[in-house]
Amino acid sequence: MFDAETLPYGVFTAADQPGVRRVGVATGAEIIDLSAARVPHAGLFADGSLDPFLAAGPDVWSEVRAALLAGVEGPCVPLAGAVPHLPFTVADYVDFYASEHHASNLGRLFRPGQPPLTPNWKHLPIGYHGRAGTVVVSGTEVRRPSGQTKTGESPVFGPSARLDIEAELGFVVGVPSAGPVSVDDFDRHVFGVCLLNDWSARDIQAWEYVPLGPFLGKSFATSVSPWIVPLEALDGLRVPVPSRETDLLPYLRETADRGLDLRLEVRLNGHVVSRPPYASTHWSPAQMLAHMTVNGATLRTGDLFASGTISGPEPGQAGSLIELTRAGAEKLTLPDGTTRAFLEDGDEVVISLATPGGAHLGEVAGRITG
Amino acid sequence: MFDAETLPYGVFTAADQPGVRRVGVATGAEIIDLSAARVPHAGLFADGSLDPFLAAGPDVWSEVRAALLAGVEGPCVPLAGAVPHLPFTVADYVDFYASEHHASNLGRLFRPGQPPLTPNWKHLPIGYHGRAGTVVVSGTEVRRPSGQTKTGESPVFGPSARLDIEAELGFVVGVPSAGPVSVDDFDRHVFGVCLLNDWSARDIQAWEYVPLGPFLGKSFATSVSPWIVPLEALDGLRVPVPSRETDLLPYLRETADRGLDLRLEVRLNGHVVSRPPYASTHWSPAQMLAHMTVNGATLRTGDLFASGTISGPEPGQAGSLIELTRAGAEKLTLPDGTTRAFLEDGDEVVISLATPGGAHLGEVAGRITG
Repeated sequence: MFDAETLPYGVFTAADQPGVRRVGVATGAEIIDLSAARVPHAGLFADGSLDPFLAAGPDVWSEVRAALLAGVEGPCVPLAGAVPHLPFTVADYVDFYASEHHASNLGRLFRPGQPPLTPNWKHLPIGYHGRAGTVVVSGTEVRRPSGQTKTGESPVFGPSARLDIEAELGFVVGVPSAGPVSVDDFDRHVFGVCLLNDWSARDIQAWEYVPLGPFLGKSFATSVSPWIVPLEALDGLRVPVPSRETDLLPYLRETADRGLDLRLEVRLNGHVVSRPPYASTHWSPAQMLAHMTVNGATLRTGDLFASGTISGPEPGQAGSLIELTRAGAEKLTLPDGTTRAFLEDGDEVVISLATPGGAHLGEVAGRITG
Repeated sequence: MFDAETLPYGVFTAADQPGVRRVGVATGAEIIDLSAARVPHAGLFADGSLDPFLAAGPDVWSEVRAALLAGVEGPCVPLAGAVPHLPFTVADYVDFYASEHHASNLGRLFRPGQPPLTPNWKHLPIGYHGRAGTVVVSGTEVRRPSGQTKTGESPVFGPSARLDIEAELGFVVGVPSAGPVSVDDFDRHVFGVCLLNDWSARDIQAWEYVPLGPFLGKSFATSVSPWIVPLEALDGLRVPVPSRETDLLPYLRETADRGLDLRLEVRLNGHVVSRPPYASTHWSPAQMLAHMTVNGATLRTGDLFASGTISGPEPGQAGSLIELTRAGAEKLTLPDGTTRAFLEDGDEVVISLATPGGAHLGEVAGRITG
């Protein structure tokens, strides 16, 4: 349940109004229905999508948030029973690889005998484009993908046997750009933060990903949390990114703290399997955005870019099963006595986000079907 | 100039109606304005975008084409002077790597001393997601991207010194899908074909692409031709893909000829530098689509997937400068006496498409600015 000051935005259908999508802000056990509230710029909330509000920019975001913090009049509906929707139109989806601990862990597993980080890793935030059309809202069932895998002489086709999660933060672009966006202009373009689970079929990925990167091992589904937390609500949680030993090119140098002290928690069938600390992530979201646009690539409202799997330095802080189980060599034991290397049909994964003080900032859930 | 039977679709603004977008079909020196023509399903053409027509599916596509071939009444505007627009909303953009000659040529340049093709190449059509938001229509100027490159001890930042083209065919999805699309269902979903120039900064790409694939080396711009040629117009040009020595998994086996005997021509500042034959491409578009969706990834109207650079087996048939010049070692000499390893500011590239008999099927053009 959200506190009274986070005030995240989403799109929902109330239990008593089937078929109608409304924009709302969650607070406590209720949603304020912005399409019928006395709030500045109310017209932006009329069409059941966050897109117009995202595009309106930081002055409008601040004005509406200030009004909400001061208290607005408007109808409320119970959060329980409201059906959440994907709150904005995903334009392009980019996934980064910003956690040093994650990249090192995967490098050791995928490229044994070589240095865990590629030579470019500390010089630039590595990223790639994912499939925007298969970004789905929390709660959507995820069907186990089939594909090519190769462990023996020849590739075989069948359901993935190594279905995994990736616990990430997603950043939602509001204001378009016509050219590069500097690290200092980050919050002139980015509206807020969501949780993201980048479901991954490790066996499909391992066979396909050289030389052009992940494709079908990722493109079947990416789940996001329905409530977008405004950056403004996280201002008090800004921290420096971890210290670095590599000199950065000027466009990646930050003049302000752009890391965020946020805590993730991963539950598998209700059992906590990991607590990844976002503050340990090497590249900040402002650095990722500056890199993504430095070649002149334009931004659109609804562009979504994500941190990549968030893994901390300690055991029990990794954001994927392949890391937590060392590629299946050290299975997890769940309270019901069953063990897991990777996900089984029927498994439910819930990733939640909180402040260091424990205030709830959202969750993304998904269940695997066969 | 298009003949009277190709009948490609586009969106344009007529010289005498500035600001108004109309859907049309190009024939000879004219465009039939479908928004004002007596044509079946005319309502689909009312909003200045091809999207509703693309979504309507193959029965509607055939019906409208049959009516156009029989001759429809409607206003025509001169092709010359009409301003073309991006004719559909690009949903997801996927680029494949389907030409064996291209993949082998690049493998030799990027991974010297290793086998030119990766072990997976003959088992599956390798592909990756590109940036949908920077797909632009032919004629849009392309600004030289800046980025990180590394040739010495440390990476440096600056304008790309190895700006290249990639001559490709793009395939435009009309009908969405909820799951895998078999090779036999290809033309129930794909409407037509365009030309595509996947501009590439080779120096940026070389430093960034391991391990997650191309990103900023490609994402600054991708140009497409404005006139989408319906698959139906190309039925007589279907040919088998080249013979293969590798057994394919069942979902990639074709029961009909899905290659296309199409010829590309690449002109640099008006001078022909290459004539890539599409029929030499290893993977057919139906195989690419079947692979792209076999994991359950859904399709949306406006999904665009491309062949990757088309290169034939002979000298002078490569679809990129890095191949034609062997990474700059054998520069091209242009008629004005200047030489080129890669593109210079002011250079214009025009890629055109034709049947073996010489009938024009479109072109995509772009000029480099500094």
